[in-house]
Amino acid sequence: MGFPRFWDEERETLDPAKRDALILERMQHQLRFVYSELPFYRRHYDAHGFHPDQVRSIEDFTTRVPVITKKMLVADQKEHPPFGSYARDLAPGEIARIHGSSGTSGVPTMYAVSKTDWERAGEVHAMAQWCAGVRPDDIVQVGFPFGLFFGGWGVVQGLERIGATLFPLGITESEKHLELIARLGSTVFSATPSYCIHLLSVAERMGIDLRASTVRHLLVGGEPGGSLPGTRKIIEEGWGAIAADAGSTSEMYPFQTSVDCEAGTGTHLYTDEVFTEVVSAEDLNAPIPVGERGAVVYTHLWRDSQPMIRFAPGDETYLATDPCPCGRTYPRLPEGILGRLDDMLVIRGANVFPSAVETALRSIPELGPEFRIRVRRNGALDEMTVEAEGDPALAPRTEEALKRVLGIRVPVTLLPEGTLPETTFKAKRVVDER
Amino acid sequence: MGFPRFWDEERETLDPAKRDALILERMQHQLRFVYSELPFYRRHYDAHGFHPDQVRSIEDFTTRVPVITKKMLVADQKEHPPFGSYARDLAPGEIARIHGSSGTSGVPTMYAVSKTDWERAGEVHAMAQWCAGVRPDDIVQVGFPFGLFFGGWGVVQGLERIGATLFPLGITESEKHLELIARLGSTVFSATPSYCIHLLSVAERMGIDLRASTVRHLLVGGEPGGSLPGTRKIIEEGWGAIAADAGSTSEMYPFQTSVDCEAGTGTHLYTDEVFTEVVSAEDLNAPIPVGERGAVVYTHLWRDSQPMIRFAPGDETYLATDPCPCGRTYPRLPEGILGRLDDMLVIRGANVFPSAVETALRSIPELGPEFRIRVRRNGALDEMTVEAEGDPALAPRTEEALKRVLGIRVPVTLLPEGTLPETTFKAKRVVDER
Repeated sequence: MGFPRFWDEERETLDPAKRDALILERMQHQLRFVYSELPFYRRHYDAHGFHPDQVRSIEDFTTRVPVITKKMLVADQKEHPPFGSYARDLAPGEIARIHGSSGTSGVPTMYAVSKTDWERAGEVHAMAQWCAGVRPDDIVQVGFPFGLFFGGWGVVQGLERIGATLFPLGITESEKHLELIARLGSTVFSATPSYCIHLLSVAERMGIDLRASTVRHLLVGGEPGGSLPGTRKIIEEGWGAIAADAGSTSEMYPFQTSVDCEAGTGTHLYTDEVFTEVVSAEDLNAPIPVGERGAVVYTHLWRDSQPMIRFAPGDETYLATDPCPCGRTYPRLPEGILGRLDDMLVIRGANVFPSAVETALRSIPELGPEFRIRVRRNGALDEMTVEAEGDPALAPRTEEALKRVLGIRVPVTLLPEGTLPETTFKAKRVVDER
Repeated sequence: MGFPRFWDEERETLDPAKRDALILERMQHQLRFVYSELPFYRRHYDAHGFHPDQVRSIEDFTTRVPVITKKMLVADQKEHPPFGSYARDLAPGEIARIHGSSGTSGVPTMYAVSKTDWERAGEVHAMAQWCAGVRPDDIVQVGFPFGLFFGGWGVVQGLERIGATLFPLGITESEKHLELIARLGSTVFSATPSYCIHLLSVAERMGIDLRASTVRHLLVGGEPGGSLPGTRKIIEEGWGAIAADAGSTSEMYPFQTSVDCEAGTGTHLYTDEVFTEVVSAEDLNAPIPVGERGAVVYTHLWRDSQPMIRFAPGDETYLATDPCPCGRTYPRLPEGILGRLDDMLVIRGANVFPSAVETALRSIPELGPEFRIRVRRNGALDEMTVEAEGDPALAPRTEEALKRVLGIRVPVTLLPEGTLPETTFKAKRVVDER
């Protein structure tokens, strides 16, 4: 069909130097706004001797603005209910949406999104979904939940703007998802990468070949992994479709931070909407060279309701800035978000991300989709074992693959199919027995 | 606040005679459209010797147009997947939404809503919610599910148009709903009437007095009962809020067919959007006097994607046409939808609706919110017993109340609190042991 290539060509293909000027202007605007209007930021900046006037360049922003963390936000919201002193005081009529995310103590963190922010975020979602290949003639079946979490709501928002047909089925039986894909001829399926993989094994049991289905694009997100080469290969080959990973966090939502284009070169960072840095994990004010692994730091350049300024979610990744053949001039995360620094295990001196274990397992197509990492204490050391599903004869090959990716030897137990719990939303991979 | 009284004053307060002229014009338009464009209707009308030209008055419409039923729609959709030959052939880009309802055989009935219909239905939802008392400064917490069923989606659509704050929490733990009402200061709560009653008992267990909460309006629907005087009284007194019942069916959705105004005189029928008749249950082409009980028949006057023309869902109710103090000139259903004719039990010659049992039980405030009707075969006759929760000493009073409402004596068993299953979505009241 004769649809244009970009949702917003001027914006997406802008000369990066010109974009940087706009980014700096917005950084300065947001810093002045949060310092004068939001007590949380004022206290935090005063305590660190930081003042918005100190930022005269993007480099100043990285090296001088103190970061904020989930822990600080939770404590502040507890003290200043319901939305924290990092939220602008909104009249009821000014809030479009309230959502929440599960908190550490069972008390959810709440988000209030102003009407202007909600509108703006809808535009960003549409731009991201268009970048991933969604068009107005698509039928999009959504397998994300609709409820407290932002989950599928952002997907809805973008699709409504694009004008695609929306089928928001949500969380339901896997058989129903597969039957309705066939019955409706859905062309796009959207869910977590774990669930897309899970559906492959359900389809196999049902005798359905998803490569023959009408689905041509998968929009995955909600957890790391969608950009891992092994994971993406399984999904794309099993579905016979292009998988596009999209990243964000509850704190940054409803603003999408990054999304894959159809060229598959990594998730593109909409830095003129959410400025994204990858800095030293040891010092979040220390820049690192492009391509080096570090900690992600996000900044809302336009959000006014609960703006995150240098929010460090604890995720690890690396950047690329070479041109993408798609024509968009944004920097990219070649493998998306690699995983949470908090989830990182230190096993005999090696840093192990659960996502790296996944990459290794995905290289052996005979294994089932589910796996589990058991971590135990052995004296002063942590030990890990990996459980997956498959023929026990595959154990040596699996251990080799893990050795290759992780750099250490890890014992593997292969269990009969159907032993491990099935994933229908976000996968829970680590069993901590320490 | 200085909000206007009506969403669309001219439309809602129009002289009924002028409205009738518009209704007739739309009837004729829809009949011509479905006869020429939709094979299902053409076959049906031809088989009954009916032609659109035969309709020159609203009376012609009632007496001449053959009705359609759920069974016919299911059979047609099975033969003409995915949406039936009663659906207009829409290009993918013309469909806004796909939803479904559970079918009798486990195969869901599917609905495709065109973009023009979706937009129009949003306007009707907003008009209905405004009529029920929702305003832009409300915080609306939704306890309907979001998924395959239209459920909460229509609520969202209307609220977005009104500009109220939407908190679409959906189906979740009752404790979480109650905690978040308190934490956010929600002013409107929307769910099934059964769930609103269920939350009262959960609140009591948690030591929360909902009368002291910020909730001032309840939007109930999704099942009959919200307009039954006993049920409404329990909900309104327990919550210290005005309860507004709203009616529709999956086939008529996303178009809301009726809604309560704040005067509590019955649900107002938007007859210029969905023309609603109450006719003889024995002959669906036979008019009955206003006020007499009969079968409901619905017609979409504007929908173009899957229009229902004289659809008989099998529900019973009665009409009122005297003026409502609210100023709206629509006819009303004083007690909403009384129940499905299919659910009607014939016990020793008496017609018994489960909703009538509910009315009787609600007159005894000491009883718990849940109840169950057991129907057994005794020789050639059906026998029923009612189970509710409460002090066994209340049994004689309960049996008296049932005798008064149903006209027959029914044995009652009173069980300890917590024995009967809790209702979190639509209540399941009848246990058929025949």
